[in-house]
Amino acid sequence: MLTTHPFDDDKLREECGVFGVYNHGEAAAVAALGLHALQHRGQEAAGIVTFDGEHYHIQHAMGQVGDNFSSQSVIAKLKGHAAIGHVRYATSGDTVLRNVQPLFADFEFGGFALAHNGNLTNALMLRRQLVRRGCLFQSTTDTEVIVHLMATARSGSVIDRMVEALRQVEGAYSLIALANDMVIGVRDPLGVRPLVLGKVGDSNVLCSESCALDIIGAEFVRDVEPGEMIVLDSSGVHSLRPFLPQNRRFCIFEYIYFARPDSVVEGHSVYEARKRIGMELARESAVDADVIIPVPDSGVPAAIGYAAESGIPFELGIIRNHYVGRTFIEPTDQIRNLGVKLKHNANRHMIEGKRVVLVDDSIVRGTTSIKIIEMVRRAGAKEVHMRISSPPTSHACFYGVDTPKKEKLLAHKYSIDEMAKYIGADSLAFISIDGLYKAVKEPEGRNNAKPQYCDACFTGDYPIPLLDRDTPGEGSEVTYRAEARG
Amino acid sequence: MLTTHPFDDDKLREECGVFGVYNHGEAAAVAALGLHALQHRGQEAAGIVTFDGEHYHIQHAMGQVGDNFSSQSVIAKLKGHAAIGHVRYATSGDTVLRNVQPLFADFEFGGFALAHNGNLTNALMLRRQLVRRGCLFQSTTDTEVIVHLMATARSGSVIDRMVEALRQVEGAYSLIALANDMVIGVRDPLGVRPLVLGKVGDSNVLCSESCALDIIGAEFVRDVEPGEMIVLDSSGVHSLRPFLPQNRRFCIFEYIYFARPDSVVEGHSVYEARKRIGMELARESAVDADVIIPVPDSGVPAAIGYAAESGIPFELGIIRNHYVGRTFIEPTDQIRNLGVKLKHNANRHMIEGKRVVLVDDSIVRGTTSIKIIEMVRRAGAKEVHMRISSPPTSHACFYGVDTPKKEKLLAHKYSIDEMAKYIGADSLAFISIDGLYKAVKEPEGRNNAKPQYCDACFTGDYPIPLLDRDTPGEGSEVTYRAEARG
Amino acid sequence: MLTTHPFDDDKLREECGVFGVYNHGEAAAVAALGLHALQHRGQEAAGIVTFDGEHYHIQHAMGQVGDNFSSQSVIAKLKGHAAIGHVRYATSGDTVLRNVQPLFADFEFGGFALAHNGNLTNALMLRRQLVRRGCLFQSTTDTEVIVHLMATARSGSVIDRMVEALRQVEGAYSLIALANDMVIGVRDPLGVRPLVLGKVGDSNVLCSESCALDIIGAEFVRDVEPGEMIVLDSSGVHSLRPFLPQNRRFCIFEYIYFARPDSVVEGHSVYEARKRIGMELARESAVDADVIIPVPDSGVPAAIGYAAESGIPFELGIIRNHYVGRTFIEPTDQIRNLGVKLKHNANRHMIEGKRVVLVDDSIVRGTTSIKIIEMVRRAGAKEVHMRISSPPTSHACFYGVDTPKKEKLLAHKYSIDEMAKYIGADSLAFISIDGLYKAVKEPEGRNNAKPQYCDACFTGDYPIPLLDRDTPGEGSEVTYRAEARG
Amino acid sequence: MLTTHPFDDDKLREECGVFGVYNHGEAAAVAALGLHALQHRGQEAAGIVTFDGEHYHIQHAMGQVGDNFSSQSVIAKLKGHAAIGHVRYATSGDTVLRNVQPLFADFEFGGFALAHNGNLTNALMLRRQLVRRGCLFQSTTDTEVIVHLMATARSGSVIDRMVEALRQVEGAYSLIALANDMVIGVRDPLGVRPLVLGKVGDSNVLCSESCALDIIGAEFVRDVEPGEMIVLDSSGVHSLRPFLPQNRRFCIFEYIYFARPDSVVEGHSVYEARKRIGMELARESAVDADVIIPVPDSGVPAAIGYAAESGIPFELGIIRNHYVGRTFIEPTDQIRNLGVKLKHNANRHMIEGKRVVLVDDSIVRGTTSIKIIEMVRRAGAKEVHMRISSPPTSHACFYGVDTPKKEKLLAHKYSIDEMAKYIGADSLAFISIDGLYKAVKEPEGRNNAKPQYCDACFTGDYPIPLLDRDTPGEGSEVTYRAEARG
Repeated sequence: MLTTHPFDDDKLREECGVFGVYNHGEAAAVAALGLHALQHRGQEAAGIVTFDGEHYHIQHAMGQVGDNFSSQSVIAKLKGHAAIGHVRYATSGDTVLRNVQPLFADFEFGGFALAHNGNLTNALMLRRQLVRRGCLFQSTTDTEVIVHLMATARSGSVIDRMVEALRQVEGAYSLIALANDMVIGVRDPLGVRPLVLGKVGDSNVLCSESCALDIIGAEFVRDVEPGEMIVLDSSGVHSLRPFLPQNRRFCIFEYIYFARPDSVVEGHSVYEARKRIGMELARESAVDADVIIPVPDSGVPAAIGYAAESGIPFELGIIRNHYVGRTFIEPTDQIRNLGVKLKHNANRHMIEGKRVVLVDDSIVRGTTSIKIIEMVRRAGAKEVHMRISSPPTSHACFYGVDTPKKEKLLAHKYSIDEMAKYIGADSLAFISIDGLYKAVKEPEGRNNAKPQYCDACFTGDYPIPLLDRDTPGEGSEVTYRAEARG
Repeated sequence: MLTTHPFDDDKLREECGVFGVYNHGEAAAVAALGLHALQHRGQEAAGIVTFDGEHYHIQHAMGQVGDNFSSQSVIAKLKGHAAIGHVRYATSGDTVLRNVQPLFADFEFGGFALAHNGNLTNALMLRRQLVRRGCLFQSTTDTEVIVHLMATARSGSVIDRMVEALRQVEGAYSLIALANDMVIGVRDPLGVRPLVLGKVGDSNVLCSESCALDIIGAEFVRDVEPGEMIVLDSSGVHSLRPFLPQNRRFCIFEYIYFARPDSVVEGHSVYEARKRIGMELARESAVDADVIIPVPDSGVPAAIGYAAESGIPFELGIIRNHYVGRTFIEPTDQIRNLGVKLKHNANRHMIEGKRVVLVDDSIVRGTTSIKIIEMVRRAGAKEVHMRISSPPTSHACFYGVDTPKKEKLLAHKYSIDEMAKYIGADSLAFISIDGLYKAVKEPEGRNNAKPQYCDACFTGDYPIPLLDRDTPGEGSEVTYRAEARG
Repeated sequence: MLTTHPFDDDKLREECGVFGVYNHGEAAAVAALGLHALQHRGQEAAGIVTFDGEHYHIQHAMGQVGDNFSSQSVIAKLKGHAAIGHVRYATSGDTVLRNVQPLFADFEFGGFALAHNGNLTNALMLRRQLVRRGCLFQSTTDTEVIVHLMATARSGSVIDRMVEALRQVEGAYSLIALANDMVIGVRDPLGVRPLVLGKVGDSNVLCSESCALDIIGAEFVRDVEPGEMIVLDSSGVHSLRPFLPQNRRFCIFEYIYFARPDSVVEGHSVYEARKRIGMELARESAVDADVIIPVPDSGVPAAIGYAAESGIPFELGIIRNHYVGRTFIEPTDQIRNLGVKLKHNANRHMIEGKRVVLVDDSIVRGTTSIKIIEMVRRAGAKEVHMRISSPPTSHACFYGVDTPKKEKLLAHKYSIDEMAKYIGADSLAFISIDGLYKAVKEPEGRNNAKPQYCDACFTGDYPIPLLDRDTPGEGSEVTYRAEARG
Repeated sequence: MLTTHPFDDDKLREECGVFGVYNHGEAAAVAALGLHALQHRGQEAAGIVTFDGEHYHIQHAMGQVGDNFSSQSVIAKLKGHAAIGHVRYATSGDTVLRNVQPLFADFEFGGFALAHNGNLTNALMLRRQLVRRGCLFQSTTDTEVIVHLMATARSGSVIDRMVEALRQVEGAYSLIALANDMVIGVRDPLGVRPLVLGKVGDSNVLCSESCALDIIGAEFVRDVEPGEMIVLDSSGVHSLRPFLPQNRRFCIFEYIYFARPDSVVEGHSVYEARKRIGMELARESAVDADVIIPVPDSGVPAAIGYAAESGIPFELGIIRNHYVGRTFIEPTDQIRNLGVKLKHNANRHMIEGKRVVLVDDSIVRGTTSIKIIEMVRRAGAKEVHMRISSPPTSHACFYGVDTPKKEKLLAHKYSIDEMAKYIGADSLAFISIDGLYKAVKEPEGRNNAKPQYCDACFTGDYPIPLLDRDTPGEGSEVTYRAEARG
């Protein structure tokens, strides 16, 4: 298959986005719009659960929000003043519809819906214990252990059960739940994944990124704090602190690629962060060239920054086809060799005879870089210099991002010089870890004693124990995760 | 309906793209890819006809190429070494499937398929004459008159019949036909619409723009000349000149908006032309400002040019949602007011407190401009200056572009100052006609005695007689065109 | 494919049913119901055209009426007080949607829609002449020649043009047309195919069989006469006689199999005719047996007649699965051998140890008979005697029925004894031609000098010249018919 | 909606059919065929689970078997040598896909799939207890309590857990399970619902009725006994007797209506039983008449019996439309009044002027009887006598059949004379309870001390305690069943 999927094959993928709204006359419609704005965090499935004061209404679907939650007939069935929603990656096929979130369960106290961005690192251990107790799992998601831990908890109220359950799990999570006429948001104590609080009229909103506030005309109130539990109910917004405080370790890759450029997360504009990374990169790894060309679309802000700092002109030397998201047949080798051109085309007149600096955000396996550089060379580039707005991605993520196994990561296998050769660049440079920290306004760079961010994919410094992976006899966490991402 | 259609509501729309290939082992697949690259010229329907030496195979569909021509099963049915295809606008609904091109008819000499980009200006007159003779029309397209004129022609060969028919029609056309194991391309004598010739291996290709050559790895050979007929057959490429020569009047709006930026048409890179228009615009209408922001995506090249010439930084101050092409429900006024944000979001941190220059390619009705400027103001812009990379659009097009009636065009109703007020800009400027001509490498500007381009939408100077419109008793050409665009 | 299609593979198939209604507030809904009742005459495509006093509304679809014309949204678009409709066979695939009737064309006098049951025997000759004149055919149906003959006719009114056209065609036809606010019905001068006139309230109805009157609560008025043209308009029902009178030759197979048992056609109850054939058959070909078993469902009335006359008990020894119309995969030979059981199952307790008389309506290729007899033997029948309620089918039909080529007809290849052996029956008997005529109330049997019915499929006596087939140089009528049935 | 659903509105509905096969090379295809043959037991949803020695493959779908399990692509995914399947009724809509069986759960010992025909009468009580223990239910089916009881059982093996669970449930059940490379069948100790054992080649089969053996060419081995558990595994067929023996109480309504006429259940041919009921009915309630007409299709065998015994001719006086299973719009009262004719049409020539005996199998609410009798009268019947081949249906079923509340049953509200008047019959008679027992070969009639069948719907004698219904505080079993039938 030749694909024009807007997300390149060779990217890390954020695995989920979450959204919740309380006290809105159009809660389901608002949730659908919010999820549409968060679509970049998960394109393969979506779900919304609403509560109308009496009943819960549930709709899950494989595919994008716009394909499944845009019709009046669907929205009309999702009655109620409170709604939570989720977008995620999932393998294709009907059988995994059961993995689409929000999960829903009937408790003694009534219905309970749960949406999760992140990944639990002791889910397998907990699942085995729960199965031994007689619990039956309806999905293969890690998230479901939270629901069973709540069902088997001693204490009574939803909040108490949820806290009791979360104290037993390890991992990264930004959760939004709907129960007992409350919308509940929680971030794990390190705050690895984002979660923000907003307000529109008399309605309160929780969501992964501020761009989901913008789309519904809501104003940004503040980030939910690491370890904080926010409860939205008829009396307003309540903040609980059920966990021991820890140092925050927000995922730095959210700034590099995951978050939308128009979002503000953890206090910084994503666009500006990216542009500053580009500027920093220009300072660290200057090169004599004629034109700065972004690899569209994620490389654009860094390329603008690189161009501004270097004084070399910025041009759209690679044009992206707008008609995306489709796959095309690949009948023969002849067609297969067309490769990357389905989604990108070189703008030959900007490239021919020139020394080109390509700016991209990351290299994972290197497959796309090879094709892009080859395309640019065929269009007549005299030199091709690759500049990457992240450090080398050398380790897998276990906190809610889909990464290939370490062995597949180009930066794990090769030195930077070898990588340059492999992808066919005349030169290749990555931003340094300290340069990256500076760009996100840590002027001293990384504090190695007490790092300010989670940067495990670059450094291998995992701030949360990887219990499933590291416990002998607990078997392959990778297999489990293959089916069960949150 | 809130829409995220990639083409803004307030744009003129190119009505068709055409593609043909001869002597290719994967002719249908290649045609599907070519049409995918031409998708911006018509998103609402597509069709492909192939010939396998014995039989014709026909597939028409409402919707985009990627949705209808990407599966192996569809392509496998379209057997043959020769294929022609078409993308177009069409009103919705099953009943107009009969208007989807390529048109197909059985002649005495065998099958004949025809794809048309452009619009005939005496189609209604001819249709009435043909109906009186007993001809039955199967579609409401203007294109079908060509087929009936061929059927009732005296002479025998396909080429002769086609020339005899074309000598009777007035209008703009770039045609591709398939008959008698030939692919035939023709441009009208003024060359209003583009048509280019390419080559990949032993296969020859005709298509609307060079970007459709790039996607299949074909090389650009040359533009088909105005009034030229190109025949592709088993002995190669043949050129005929069946019409009296006239001055060429290529559509200048192709450079401003219609063509893809990575295309080369009539000898110029579209991207470079747009950038030069932006530079010219900066010279003509400078303004003291802090940031140059393109209205995505069509405003980007001109904004880069404007920024380069003015020295003011270029920033992505408006972010576009990638997940496009869908419509969302609009349950209440509350949701309706969200308006433009479904597809665009202001990047507040680039805008707040700044004097902003917005660069866009055109203003048709002004509806989008109002919303964009309002969005930018809400994001905190101190001043908003609008710069447009075309002259005021004050006249309708009758040569294959979908324009509102003259009465709906903002530039027809208002002066530039009134327009600025209407859209809410602190200042508004358009490129001058001469500035535009200079940007497309006519250093002396427009030659009013013998204009180098068709610019009727700006000047009202229509180079081809509008017979249907102007002939009393011939009735409403507007009604006819409403159903029958080519 | 294993099929549970309600019509057996080994049946002749009526190729079309037609329906028209004038002056009804729910014309499209009524037409959909009428076509549903005529579904047995054509399951593969359906179409309805309505007229609302100003505009025509057209809907064509592949598949059954219930699947395509049962929703409010479809019916609501088919506005108007007059409607005509058609059900037909058609080869599968989108490309032949253009062959679905009613055909529609724009004439100088306005729109014209035409639905045809029957087959023209000089359509190819006429088509070639029309193509030479410059007519372009939009379908491959024989019916379309009538439309072009009308378009190129000298005279002006719809009726005049239609008569002029029909005087030039040979063949069998029951036509219903919609034009100039009239619904027009015509039967060919021999009256080969049925057409009846009915009335419900102030609305007049024309349709193939009276069962389509029953479903809408209409009363049967009379058969349209051979050679008669009926016009329904705002002033009522008008009868014209534009052709020279001829002896009527109604298709006798309509009584045997095509028509629904609850219909009355040409003055006789179909059910009673079938029962009388069974009684006649019992008299002609008695056999000593224990049980009379119909081959469901078409054999039931004749089996009841046979049982009544013979005094042997009638039992449902073969049970039909209600869940029909689907195809099942056939992954292996093992599954393939299940064969006929998908739609039929032997009722073993009625068969085991018994001498069985199976009653069926016809044998075409014999393929189903072989399977049925084998199934009955496996269920333990001691003897199996086959009795057929038609004479041997030894000739192809060219008047609107889908028959295999003569060479494939079992009765063409074999004697009755050989047929018995081939299908595995202990004995086999067909009703005689004279017995058949007696059963349809011709007490003297067939009048060979002036036969009362068309029985060409049994006798080879073709009452209408087969011009396309018999004219040298006119090529293969079979090829033409393969695509173009009406 | 006007409906042509093959099952009349006014029938009781069997709620499920089950099928299992072990050791077959085409297990999924065989299961699909078996379910197709059982389609009359549940048309609204279907599911198949297979096991390939390592993995389970699951496919659930709303709709009929032929629509969802007939394509090669679906069957190819259902890999394995063992398969179980289920057809059922279900309310419409996506959200209840989770209720489609076979249910599937991951146990410590591996996967477990369960298909259930019947209904548990203490499911609500058990569900509440399980929820209090922390069990989370994924469906609203009664069947799921069995799965949770197994999960929370003390003992280890699948068989032990299943027996432990079943000892806690009350109700009617024929279950088929798939686990640990075994297919397991169980009937409740009274044997209320049917389950038969068959064999084809080296494969063993379990299914609801013998017609599902016929379709795959399998031979009938024997009924599974009440209270028996059958295990099919690689070493063959094993029989267990885990329950205390009880008197068998097979559902007598299976003979009257539910089972297919070509099935043999509990030792009797269904067709013959129905015919004998008709004969008994003729003896009990003779009437002077001209013609015996079955209400199609379920009334046919009893009508044949009635005709044979009475000597009055049997005729198809009501014709059924083959094109069934669709709904038609109902735009106006005018159309609504067409009523029953969409699926049935009177065969006027068999009815006019005659004294008619209509034979039907049951009267539930009486709505269809009213319409049928009215239709027959409109067709000219002189007298209409209704004969019913079951006793009056006066009580609801709680053992797996969908019955209206008692208050809606015509026989609960009215005497027989009142019923006759209500439906408009000149006379009305039902078979007596003893006559019914005689027809199923109990020559002494019903043994009231120890009834041989479950006949609660006629007598109110419920052989299994209705715990959910009768326990105060356990709330409305009716509400529960409304969503959760098995």
